[in-house]
Amino acid sequence: MNAERLIEKKRDGGVLTDEEIRALIEGYTAGRVPDYQMAAWCMAVYFKGLTARETAALTRAMADSGPRADLSSIPGVKVDKHSTGGVGDTVTLITAPIAAAAGVPIAKLSGRSLGFTGGTVDKLSAIPGYRTALSFEEFVGQVRRCGIAMAGQSADLAPADAKLYALRDATGTVESLPLIASSVMSKKIASGADAVVLDVKCGRGAFMKEERQAAALMEEMTALGRAAGLRVIAFVTDMNVPLGMAIGNSVEVDEAVEVLMGRGGRRLTTLALTIAGAMICAGEKAETLAEGRSMAEEMIRSGRALAKFKECVAAQGGDTSWIGVRPLTEETYAHTVRAARSGYVEDIRPVELARLVMDMGGGRATKDDEIDLSVGLRLWKEPGEAVTEGEPLMTLYGREDLPMEALGRRAAEMVEIGPEQNVFPLVYRMADSRDE
Amino acid sequence: MNAERLIEKKRDGGVLTDEEIRALIEGYTAGRVPDYQMAAWCMAVYFKGLTARETAALTRAMADSGPRADLSSIPGVKVDKHSTGGVGDTVTLITAPIAAAAGVPIAKLSGRSLGFTGGTVDKLSAIPGYRTALSFEEFVGQVRRCGIAMAGQSADLAPADAKLYALRDATGTVESLPLIASSVMSKKIASGADAVVLDVKCGRGAFMKEERQAAALMEEMTALGRAAGLRVIAFVTDMNVPLGMAIGNSVEVDEAVEVLMGRGGRRLTTLALTIAGAMICAGEKAETLAEGRSMAEEMIRSGRALAKFKECVAAQGGDTSWIGVRPLTEETYAHTVRAARSGYVEDIRPVELARLVMDMGGGRATKDDEIDLSVGLRLWKEPGEAVTEGEPLMTLYGREDLPMEALGRRAAEMVEIGPEQNVFPLVYRMADSRDE
Repeated sequence: MNAERLIEKKRDGGVLTDEEIRALIEGYTAGRVPDYQMAAWCMAVYFKGLTARETAALTRAMADSGPRADLSSIPGVKVDKHSTGGVGDTVTLITAPIAAAAGVPIAKLSGRSLGFTGGTVDKLSAIPGYRTALSFEEFVGQVRRCGIAMAGQSADLAPADAKLYALRDATGTVESLPLIASSVMSKKIASGADAVVLDVKCGRGAFMKEERQAAALMEEMTALGRAAGLRVIAFVTDMNVPLGMAIGNSVEVDEAVEVLMGRGGRRLTTLALTIAGAMICAGEKAETLAEGRSMAEEMIRSGRALAKFKECVAAQGGDTSWIGVRPLTEETYAHTVRAARSGYVEDIRPVELARLVMDMGGGRATKDDEIDLSVGLRLWKEPGEAVTEGEPLMTLYGREDLPMEALGRRAAEMVEIGPEQNVFPLVYRMADSRDE
Repeated sequence: MNAERLIEKKRDGGVLTDEEIRALIEGYTAGRVPDYQMAAWCMAVYFKGLTARETAALTRAMADSGPRADLSSIPGVKVDKHSTGGVGDTVTLITAPIAAAAGVPIAKLSGRSLGFTGGTVDKLSAIPGYRTALSFEEFVGQVRRCGIAMAGQSADLAPADAKLYALRDATGTVESLPLIASSVMSKKIASGADAVVLDVKCGRGAFMKEERQAAALMEEMTALGRAAGLRVIAFVTDMNVPLGMAIGNSVEVDEAVEVLMGRGGRRLTTLALTIAGAMICAGEKAETLAEGRSMAEEMIRSGRALAKFKECVAAQGGDTSWIGVRPLTEETYAHTVRAARSGYVEDIRPVELARLVMDMGGGRATKDDEIDLSVGLRLWKEPGEAVTEGEPLMTLYGREDLPMEALGRRAAEMVEIGPEQNVFPLVYRMADSRDE
């Protein structure tokens, strides 16, 4: 294999064979193809794209670059869930116990956060005692015992993807649709699940700004799943405003528990039920998405979803005494912002609010940053909701050393109140790998 | 400086500031910007190009990446000459002594060959005793004494260019017009000359296949020279058929000497006089190109050019006893191919003949290959010339271990004889940095 020739072939708009792509990825994983050649190839892909077949070959080659997780000892259809990353996106924490309560085995490996979107592992770490680092045996054993485990992702799965992602991050080649799709799907294939529900975020607070782009990514990932024999149900959902009403690690756990108790905000609850329904359907515990969604509602209503969450936390060594009793988040350095006028919440800027929480110490700018899991903010009004002057609009949870008043003023600027009651869409599109 | 941001800026079609380009090149030279980021940037440049100003900034930054050669102790206007590389291109060996004989100081630093085009340093090495490795003091001293020195290029000039060129070679980013232009001109600026005559080869045997591309490269390099205060006279010349009638190192020296004696082939002699005339004009020893060309002819007619060549060879320790007496090339393993039919030479394929000489050991496939300077071939008929069946068409100069008959049959296939007397153009275009 001559890597230079493969770079030139792609640069000139050619189509690489399955063997060429496999040789490139194997060479890169083994260190025979240097970073600089791979970087040039990625930039050529950025400009010239990959065909569906090339993308599938790349996905397969990356999934095969390390051992695949073997979940075969867990009975049933194992369902994974993935979001491309949004603000206030606590959906995994909610849907995993719902689907598990409905009988779908949930072996959930999650990443840590980077940038302004939170990682499920960070959120779970906000629960005192919760162990996110499980050995693979512990992890599988817990799924077999409890039907659910939520732990941190091991670096062994799809090592080519990990290496390539770090390279793309440093070379301006992240924003390539086939490279994004193959990166996500190679990890999902390697994770050993039988099915995956994908939530592709779309809007100003997401990586994909346009619905058209997001839909293309959704279709691409669905096709990759189909090619790999992995059932995929995928959605394009809104990220022009925050999904949930909590931003921060500890506060998002609180909000997830509220949704599991049937007391969550409208947007987050609606999407969580939709995704959980799809997971139940993908896990073959429901015939249709509608039936899956009804079951998800029943899991909340009956308290079984909350009980499953508690069981999972307890199994992983976490404190459960607060669940359903009091918020996890301390209120000591809380600062509440009140509405300056009456009207409707016309807009909430997601990225700016998430950056504010990052600035408070709640997010990572680089992979090695320590984060403060306790800081965050909670909105008390959803987009489109009516508000009266002087009503609490949001609360910031800070620290002694943070200028809470100033942060509050900054946060207030990110919520617009006006006379218009705007409509905020939630789910734009849906795809299923079973539909050709 | 954030290299990733500069990659993204170029990728998105943005224009980098002079400071950004300088920071990138300085960072790359110092090793702060890794190869993989530079490779991604080069591929982005491949697709998005560089503005004239960006190209000028890149050229300046690369020229300044090491010390510039100081030729100020040599009186007069120092003229350099560069060809983008062709088959049978012995023009430097001919024009340097012509221009020196006309009073233009020639401080010629040349590279070694790579691929199927010969390097002047390799050709000179075919002369027994000729020292191509001179210290800078020796080199300048010789120019001061003899008016000419022809030596190997030191690695110190424009080190960023050397590093970047090696990277581009491995990452499919050689074929970018602004990167080619800046590479050539950064070396020329760093070499300390006051003026340069450029010969941009064009056609199937050259890097630039289309006249349009070659003309664009010529204009770009002329503009870069103008911006750097370097007088540039540039030509686009034909490389659809071999320029000279010799291919190989020793045989090309023989052909150069024949031209200097007034007994060379038509195409090579014509172009050499044109280029030498431009060098004399750029060196301010003639007012016009026409006057420069007349002077060049006079330097040959009078024998002064040949004498200057001899003087240069002697000064660098080379054997001069053969010059004007007998060919340098040994005839021991020569094999002559005769014309299979009568007609005109309708075509001579340059790349295929050059590859044949490479296969005989006369060219390098990789930078570290040892080459056999004695092998080569000489054509006895130029493109367009009449030929009679049985007449000698060419002679291959080989070695005991080479299958000369088989090589001869292969070579014969690359020369077409037919009824048409085709016209073979030589000079397509010309540009002068003095003309805006």
